[in-house]
Amino acid sequence: MEKDREKCLKLAIRIYELDAMVYKASGSDLGRTFSGSKKHNIDELLILIMSNPQGHLLRSEMALIGNMARSIRDKQVRHDLMVEYNDILEEIASLPKSFGSVDIVDKDLADLNSSILNKKFSDEDHLVICISRSHGSAGTDIGFALSESLRINYYDEAVLNQILERRDVKEFGADGPKTNDFSRYHGLSKQDAMFFRQSALICELAKQEDMIVMGRCADVVLTGQHIPHISIYITAPFAIRVRRMMEVKNMDLKQAINMIRKMDHKHQDYYHAYTGRRWGDAINYDLCINSACYGIEESVELIERLINRQAKSNRHKEQSPKK
Amino acid sequence: MEKDREKCLKLAIRIYELDAMVYKASGSDLGRTFSGSKKHNIDELLILIMSNPQGHLLRSEMALIGNMARSIRDKQVRHDLMVEYNDILEEIASLPKSFGSVDIVDKDLADLNSSILNKKFSDEDHLVICISRSHGSAGTDIGFALSESLRINYYDEAVLNQILERRDVKEFGADGPKTNDFSRYHGLSKQDAMFFRQSALICELAKQEDMIVMGRCADVVLTGQHIPHISIYITAPFAIRVRRMMEVKNMDLKQAINMIRKMDHKHQDYYHAYTGRRWGDAINYDLCINSACYGIEESVELIERLINRQAKSNRHKEQSPKK
Repeated sequence: MEKDREKCLKLAIRIYELDAMVYKASGSDLGRTFSGSKKHNIDELLILIMSNPQGHLLRSEMALIGNMARSIRDKQVRHDLMVEYNDILEEIASLPKSFGSVDIVDKDLADLNSSILNKKFSDEDHLVICISRSHGSAGTDIGFALSESLRINYYDEAVLNQILERRDVKEFGADGPKTNDFSRYHGLSKQDAMFFRQSALICELAKQEDMIVMGRCADVVLTGQHIPHISIYITAPFAIRVRRMMEVKNMDLKQAINMIRKMDHKHQDYYHAYTGRRWGDAINYDLCINSACYGIEESVELIERLINRQAKSNRHKEQSPKK
Repeated sequence: MEKDREKCLKLAIRIYELDAMVYKASGSDLGRTFSGSKKHNIDELLILIMSNPQGHLLRSEMALIGNMARSIRDKQVRHDLMVEYNDILEEIASLPKSFGSVDIVDKDLADLNSSILNKKFSDEDHLVICISRSHGSAGTDIGFALSESLRINYYDEAVLNQILERRDVKEFGADGPKTNDFSRYHGLSKQDAMFFRQSALICELAKQEDMIVMGRCADVVLTGQHIPHISIYITAPFAIRVRRMMEVKNMDLKQAINMIRKMDHKHQDYYHAYTGRRWGDAINYDLCINSACYGIEESVELIERLINRQAKSNRHKEQSPKK
């Protein structure tokens, strides 16, 4: 305890003196961080450090000194003071309960997040990207363009259903029960029957190959099965989505507004029914993208940057001469 | 019009034949994309293409063929078929209202988004990162760590207020009116007075330097002034934030839950009061990050990847020997 106090006092003095040197060296209009008597200032710093080195008050004091130090014109002086500044930050970081020492990371979530794949996952693992999107946000175009750019498979509701229907034909023959009849055999509503079959198929595929899957609550389904994936939500401001729908579908304003309202409600209800979560809530996804800020191409590049996959997509280039 | 039909018919036939070749070459269990008579299939494709080349039905048909083609083991055959596949996609893209031709990008929003800075902005522009975060999500630690990694200035409420107070002292002397009295002179509530002074300062700084600003509705303030910036929202699941608060602040469960509920409400009300928007709604930000998926260090790296700034932060290394 006494040793801690010693350590903190030394730090408090170093911070005070660094501030004095930085203030002297910089013409910054921020003025001196600490005014008043030296003893008084050092006592205050000591209390800040000992009470809560992680507190944002100490952080802000350091930020002020750092901001000022970066404004020093003389490169050599700036370098020397930044070295001392960084040493002090590291000292603070080494204190119990110091900056960043209490991390936020949730192991279970992180283990499922394959965007940090290059670090946490072996080459054996598959890159599975779940894209949920609001209607009119071009999320579907982004997902499809991403699958082409990464040269990985693309699965949306229609593709999944065609696969399931073909399996039915294989299994029961052309005249056998179709997916639509599937529920009969389980006493489930058609939608529930489809959802569970799609979910099983998504998990099966995710274990076999790199893929992009659109919607279907795939992120929650895969999380439930502890299958690594990235969950991305793509949306855009209502007005922008309306404008886009008017262009894409030749709708008038009223039609487009009603269409998007209807689809948003449908997505909300579907997602909530099968996950119990609020659709579009940033908390549910690894990452949310406002496509109106980036456009389709930029959004694709942004996601590729995010997952460090330009390299991988280049390795796949031999599959195609396309840029 | 007749020429369009010609063009679309040629495409329909190419798609049909590609599917046949891909099916033949791949042992895929997906089965043949088009069953039934050739004429019937081509007519259907023709309708799909002419009616809505952007429609997701045609997209799904193409996705099925692409998925199957990628599963072909013979590298040369796969290459040849992928070339044809990509040619057809480009053909489709060249049709009026084709995939991705109706982009979502909103010029005003995109112009403000400096995460695509390397493309759209000159070196003269400043990198301004606005970070909004939910309490307990480690957003503050991430912002501070990011500013240290990028070697750019860090401004949070405390830093901004200290700057404003010093200016008051400079202007009015130590005994002059303090920021707290500022409202007296404008008939504003203290909070409003502070908000407007902080907003003015944020805009002033954003025009001068690269910076990170925490909270303060800075994203909306800067958007209003047409100052380029990136807006990022950092959050984490409620339970994770509670657990972290218990560790960081030595709180018991009940205290932590109440604290986070209280702070979330406070943030919501503040953000809504000054922006009229719903705080934490993915639509309001360029990007939302679930810090529980990444942790502090990963989140910093993720944002650096996003803005392509490792290079920049390395250029700044001379300022410090720190890793």
